[in-house]
Order: sequence, then C-alpha cells, then structure tokens
Amino acid sequence: MQMITLIEKKRDGLPLDADEIRFFIREYTAGRIPDYQAAALLMAITLNGMSRAETVQLTLAMAASGDMLDLSDICDYAVDKHSSGGVGDKTTLVVLPLVASFGVPIAKMSGRGLGFGGGTLDKLESIDGFAVNLSEGEFRRIARETGMALAGQSQSLAPADGLLYALRDVTGTVPSWPLIASSIMSKKLAAGANGIVLDVKLGCGAFMKTLGEARDLARIMVQIGGDAGRDMAALLSDMNQPLGVAVGNALEVAEAVETLQGGGPADLRAHCIEVAAQMLRLAGRGQRFVDLDDTRNLLARQLDAGAGMQPLLRMVAAQGGDVAQITDMSRLPKARLRAAFSARETGAVAAIFADKVGWATLALGAGRATKTDAIDHAVGIEVHASVGDQVAAGDRLMTVHANDEDKLASAMALLDEAVAYSETAVARLPLFHGVIDSAEGATSPSTIV
Amino acid sequence: MQMITLIEKKRDGLPLDADEIRFFIREYTAGRIPDYQAAALLMAITLNGMSRAETVQLTLAMAASGDMLDLSDICDYAVDKHSSGGVGDKTTLVVLPLVASFGVPIAKMSGRGLGFGGGTLDKLESIDGFAVNLSEGEFRRIARETGMALAGQSQSLAPADGLLYALRDVTGTVPSWPLIASSIMSKKLAAGANGIVLDVKLGCGAFMKTLGEARDLARIMVQIGGDAGRDMAALLSDMNQPLGVAVGNALEVAEAVETLQGGGPADLRAHCIEVAAQMLRLAGRGQRFVDLDDTRNLLARQLDAGAGMQPLLRMVAAQGGDVAQITDMSRLPKARLRAAFSARETGAVAAIFADKVGWATLALGAGRATKTDAIDHAVGIEVHASVGDQVAAGDRLMTVHANDEDKLASAMALLDEAVAYSETAVARLPLFHGVIDSAEGATSPSTIV
Repeated sequence: MQMITLIEKKRDGLPLDADEIRFFIREYTAGRIPDYQAAALLMAITLNGMSRAETVQLTLAMAASGDMLDLSDICDYAVDKHSSGGVGDKTTLVVLPLVASFGVPIAKMSGRGLGFGGGTLDKLESIDGFAVNLSEGEFRRIARETGMALAGQSQSLAPADGLLYALRDVTGTVPSWPLIASSIMSKKLAAGANGIVLDVKLGCGAFMKTLGEARDLARIMVQIGGDAGRDMAALLSDMNQPLGVAVGNALEVAEAVETLQGGGPADLRAHCIEVAAQMLRLAGRGQRFVDLDDTRNLLARQLDAGAGMQPLLRMVAAQGGDVAQITDMSRLPKARLRAAFSARETGAVAAIFADKVGWATLALGAGRATKTDAIDHAVGIEVHASVGDQVAAGDRLMTVHANDEDKLASAMALLDEAVAYSETAVARLPLFHGVIDSAEGATSPSTIV
Repeated sequence: MQMITLIEKKRDGLPLDADEIRFFIREYTAGRIPDYQAAALLMAITLNGMSRAETVQLTLAMAASGDMLDLSDICDYAVDKHSSGGVGDKTTLVVLPLVASFGVPIAKMSGRGLGFGGGTLDKLESIDGFAVNLSEGEFRRIARETGMALAGQSQSLAPADGLLYALRDVTGTVPSWPLIASSIMSKKLAAGANGIVLDVKLGCGAFMKTLGEARDLARIMVQIGGDAGRDMAALLSDMNQPLGVAVGNALEVAEAVETLQGGGPADLRAHCIEVAAQMLRLAGRGQRFVDLDDTRNLLARQLDAGAGMQPLLRMVAAQGGDVAQITDMSRLPKARLRAAFSARETGAVAAIFADKVGWATLALGAGRATKTDAIDHAVGIEVHASVGDQVAAGDRLMTVHANDEDKLASAMALLDEAVAYSETAVARLPLFHGVIDSAEGATSPSTIV
C-alpha cells in the first residue's frame, strides 16, 4: 500500500477503506510516513470530508494506535464524561463524586487544559500534594479501593491522536469535523468506557460557536461511539456566559465543593444534575435510572445531603492531596490582590462574553498560552451577574483575584469589553439546547466535511 | 507574516495577495518553511484553485527565486519555445536551427526528459562529445558567436520550481492547473525570453488527454506570460499518435536532420513549420513575418534549401559534438537488433496509441523511468504507419531497434496493444486543434482549479 494512493483518492473525493485508514494511522504513528504526506492527506480530508464509515474507522484506528484500557477489573460497566471545554466549567469536579456516591465506580483519565483556563487536572492541583500522574497500577488500585480515581491521560493512550493533533495545529487542518470528532472519541474509546456522556458546549466561550455546529459535532461523535459499540449521549449546553460564578482553578474547586454540599450557583447545580443524570442512565443500562425526572430528583437530594463529599475526600486522600483544604476551603490558595469590576451602565445585562472573561483569566495566569506555561492556581474571576439581570451603574459585577498588579490591569482592560448592556429587558440564557442520543444520531448526512 | 495564515486563507477559499505568495516562495526556497506546511498549502491550492492574478504572482515569485537570465547582450528580442512533451517530438531540433537561419538568435535552456523518452538534451547527446552542461559564460559566448546555443537548464534558474515539483510529486498535488502552469512558465520567464511559443500537446501520448484540458492549460500560460510582459502564442497540437516516424534519441536526430534537408515525414515538417512560423511572428514584432501564410511558404523554401543545416552544424561544433555524425548519419549510434512489428489485421489503422509506443520505447532503454537511469541513445522505434492508412495483415507497421533480446521482447509485447484496426475507413488525425494568443487568453474564467 502506498501513502500517495491514499492522498490521491481523498483528493479526488473517493472514500478510503478500513485497511487504508489503518495503514495510514499505523505507519504514521511508527514514523514511516513523512509529515508532508500526512499534511497533504489532512488538508484533503479537511476540504473533501469523510463519510461516517471512514470517520468511525479513523477513530478506531487512532484508539488502537496505543494501549486500550480494560476497566473490567474495576467495574462491570465503566461510564465516562467529556466536555468540549468552556469558561468556568468545573462540572467534572462535581459530577464524578456525585455519580460515584451512587456506587457507580469512576476511573477517568483527563487531558490538560490549553487556552482560556486550566483543565480538571489543573484545578485539582490547587490542592497541595494532589498527584495526577499516576501509574496505571496506582490508578486502578485507587479506583477499585475508593470507587473513584482521576488521573492524567497516559501517553500510551491513542498516541496517533497526539501526533496528528500537533501536525493539524501547524497545517490549518484543525477545523475539520471528522478530525475533531475522531480526536476526541479515539481517546475516549482507548480509555475503556462502556458509556460516554458528551457535554458539547456552544457559544462565544466554546470551540463551537453555533447550535448547528455543536449539533453536527455531537451527532458525529454519538455515531462513532455507537458504531464502536459504546452507549452514547450528548448534551448541547450553552457557553455564551461563564458557567457558575468562579473562573480560575482554586476558586472553581471551592465552588465545586460548595455545590457538592448542596450550595453553589443554581446554573452550575442544574448543569451538573443533567450531566450526572445522563451518566446514571447509561450506567443503569435500562434497569436503573431509567426515568430522567426521577433521577434528577434523586440527584438533587443527593447533593443536598452532601453525599458526593465522601467519594471526593476519599479520592483526594488516596491521590495524596491535603484533605484539610477541602474540609476548610479557606486553606485553598488565595490571591494577594482583589479588585471589583463594576457595571458601566444601568440596565439589563445583555451579554457576559465568556471568551473575554476567559482571556482575562488567562491574563491573570490561571491558564496556559503554551504547553509549558506554569499555572497560578490562586488567581481568577468571580462573575456575580448573569445575562438578564438588572444592574445599576457602579454595581459590582465581578471580583478579580490577582497576584500581580500588571496582570490585574491587563485583565481589567480585557473585562472592559466583556459585558454588554441593554435599556430593555433581556431574556435569560438557556442552560441546554438539547440532547442527542444514539437513535437521533443515525439521521445525519453521509459525508462529513 | 505567518505561513499558517496563508494555509488557512487558501483552505477557506480566500485569495492570497502578492506579498503572501512572495513570502511563501522566498521562505520555502530558503528552507524556512517546513515541507508539511508547504504540502498543506499545495493541497489547498489543488482543491480550491487560484485566481489568474494569484497564478501570475506565483509564477513571477518562482521565476524570481533564483537567477533571471538577461539575454539582451545576445539579441534585442529573445524568442523561445516550450513543448509539453510527446512521443517522437523532435520539433526543437528542427525549429531552432530553422529560426536561427533567418538571423534570429536562439539561446535556449532545456530540461531533461523523464518518462516515455529522452528530452531534447538527451537526443543531442546521441552525438559524440556534444556538451549540454555549459557554464553561463560559454552558453552566452556560443549563442553570440554562432547565433544558436542549447544548454541544460541551470540549477540557479527558478530553484523554487524544483523544490515544489519534488514535493508535489509525493503529495498528490501534481494535477493542479495553477501549479502546472506556474511550474512551466516560471522556468520560461527566468530563462529570459521576450516571446514564447507554447506547443501544448493533447491526446493519449500527452499529459493533457483532452482538447478542453489542453486549451485550459494553454490559456492560463498565455495569460501568465502576457501579464508578465511577454509575447505569447500557444499551439494546441495532436499527440494521439507519434509525431513523425522516429521515436528514440539517435533515430530522432537523424529524422530532424532529414527534415532540415527538405525531407522527413510530412507531419513533422508541417508541425515544425507551424511552430517556427509562430516564433518568427513574435520575433518580427509586427514588422516582419506578419502574414502567417507568407511565413509558412518562406519556411518551406528554407527547409527545401537546407538553410537550417548551417546553424545546426555550427552549434554542434561549438558545443564539442562530432559534426561528422550529422553530415554522415550512418555514424550515429546504431542498435544491434532490428525487428519488424507487423499488422495483425487487414483494414484501416484506427489508432496508433502514442502512449503505448512511448512505453515500448522506454522498455528498450531510450528513456528514464527514474532521474538517475542511463539512456541508450541507439534504441527506439520507427513507426511507418499513420492513423487512416489502409494495411494488410503482415504488413510492416513498425521497426524496433534494440540492444537487448529481453528488452526487445518486452517492447514487442507492449506494442501488441498499440495499434487498433477498423473494417471501415478511418479519418486522418489533425495536426493542430487551434492556436491561442494573448488576445484570446483574456476570456477565461477567474478561478483556476
């Protein structure tokens, strides 16, 4: 088989078969296909698309390019979640302990954040001593013994994805549905979950800007997972304004803990209940958690009872973290400076642009602009207002936590562009724009460009 | 300026401006843009096309990537020709001395052949001692002193083309009009001609299979040349059957000399007259050689008088070749074996597939399958029949000249597929399908895919 033949077929709009796709992934991962040929194929895929069958084969080949985790020694049925990323999204920190509190074991491998803010692992590292770089043995032991483990993604999971992502990043081939979907899903398939809930964000603070884009991506990923024999559900959730109040690593850990204790912002609580309900529905396999309304009520009661705290504390302890920082959150890292960001106008809040809040948080040092940047866990922004609120000029809309005067000034300047006002009333934003499960996923078009 | 921005623009169907195209060519030639980024851009160009303006800018940037030859010390107005390549195409060997015989100086740099048979340089190397690797100084001196020089293309002319062609060859980005046109025209522009006649072949023995393709390519090249301030003409010529009788290096030299002496096959003579007439028309700049019919008559008389022999002999002598092999052609290299290929059927010759004759000639050793292959100048095929001829089974249609029994057998097997017969009469093939000059070139569509 010749790589040039694959490039020419895709260039001419012809489908690649499973053998050809496996050849490409295997040989490229082994370093036997040069980057320039891979780049030509990726651009041809970006412009000519892939069929559903091709995308599934690509995902499976990428998943099989390294170790495939088998979690059957930990649980009969492993359930996982994936968020496409947003501003203030600490959902994982709430949802995993909450689901684990129902006796559903959680063994999740997570990626690092790049861009606006930290990822789940970065947030957890706000806790002194918390170790995310577990060996596979430790990861399995902790999951088995405590019912919950959360570790950094092993380099041996889907290595083809890492290689291809790095090449896509420098060849203009990031925005391709089949490449985006296969990148996300290959890691999920390799991580061993039987059921996967996707939290696909849309809006100015998300990679997908529109409902149409988010729905297309969600459908493709649900199809891939279904074709690969996994149970799937995808939530389409709004990411035009930040989720919850806290944006920034330690601030988000504190807010997640409050939510697990029955408090926390209403939007975050509702969001976490929805994601957890879908995870429990999949884990219940038609036997338990079948009725979503019942499950939502159950979850609300479990939050009010603080039932998720025990799994969280057990995991923090097992992974070497300082449990005292969770039981007394005043011990979490705190920023030196605090500044109020006030309303410029009187009226309704028309928009709190999540992307701009995200960039301001990045300017404070809460995220990484490049892979090697260090993160300041203490800094961040609390967003006290929501779209639709009535405010008066001078009202405090946000509190900015900083450790550096210059960075604070940069963040404040960025926030100046982050809020829009209206003289007339503004409707609140929805939390969700729909759910896509395997059945609905089957109806999408055959070629994905 | 960032290469990724150029890739993204072209991926999204946006035009690149002149600065961006110059940046790409300059930085890629300097080795500061990696092959994988160039490959992604080339695939995006192949699939999304380029406007006429972009194609012109690309050609100019490639031409300017190395030395730009200035021939003004040799002649006021330099005229050049380019053939897109065909089987039995020894036109250059006839046309250049013929044009030179009118006092129009010729200083041409030529490429090597790859594929079916040798190029013009390979054919000339059938003559013992003939040197094609001239220094620029020698090349200029010979052109000035003898009125005609023909040398191998300097590595310093349009080096970006060589780099890009090598990358296109392995990334599936060869079949792209703007890339093909800019590749050909960048070398022509760098070689210093004021007027350029393109001989664009079409048919089974040419790169372009159809009249539509050939016309598109010719129009783009005429536009590029015109926009770059050159006088242009493009002939669309038939390459379904071999041109003339001889296919193979020394055989073609002999046939070219016969033609320069007023003999030679009628189709070759007519073809050479047409190309030469266009070259003289451009060189005459509206003062001389204005009426094509008059010029054709003048050329026919010049051939009959053998007037092109003197420029040819002077050039061969100046470039170190054995003139005795031209004045006595029995001294040219001769193959050891000679075999007849006979008609299988009685009837009209419906086709002599030029590509199959070409592959048979390659099998004999007359051409290069790879850049480093050595050429056997003596071997080749004489094609005695033409499409439309009436033949009887057993009639000799071709004579095969070989130096190796195995290669002869391979060639004979390939020739078995080379001829088609018809029980009813078959029309002769046209020599030409039209001419495109600068005026007509202006009417083509704006985006070239």
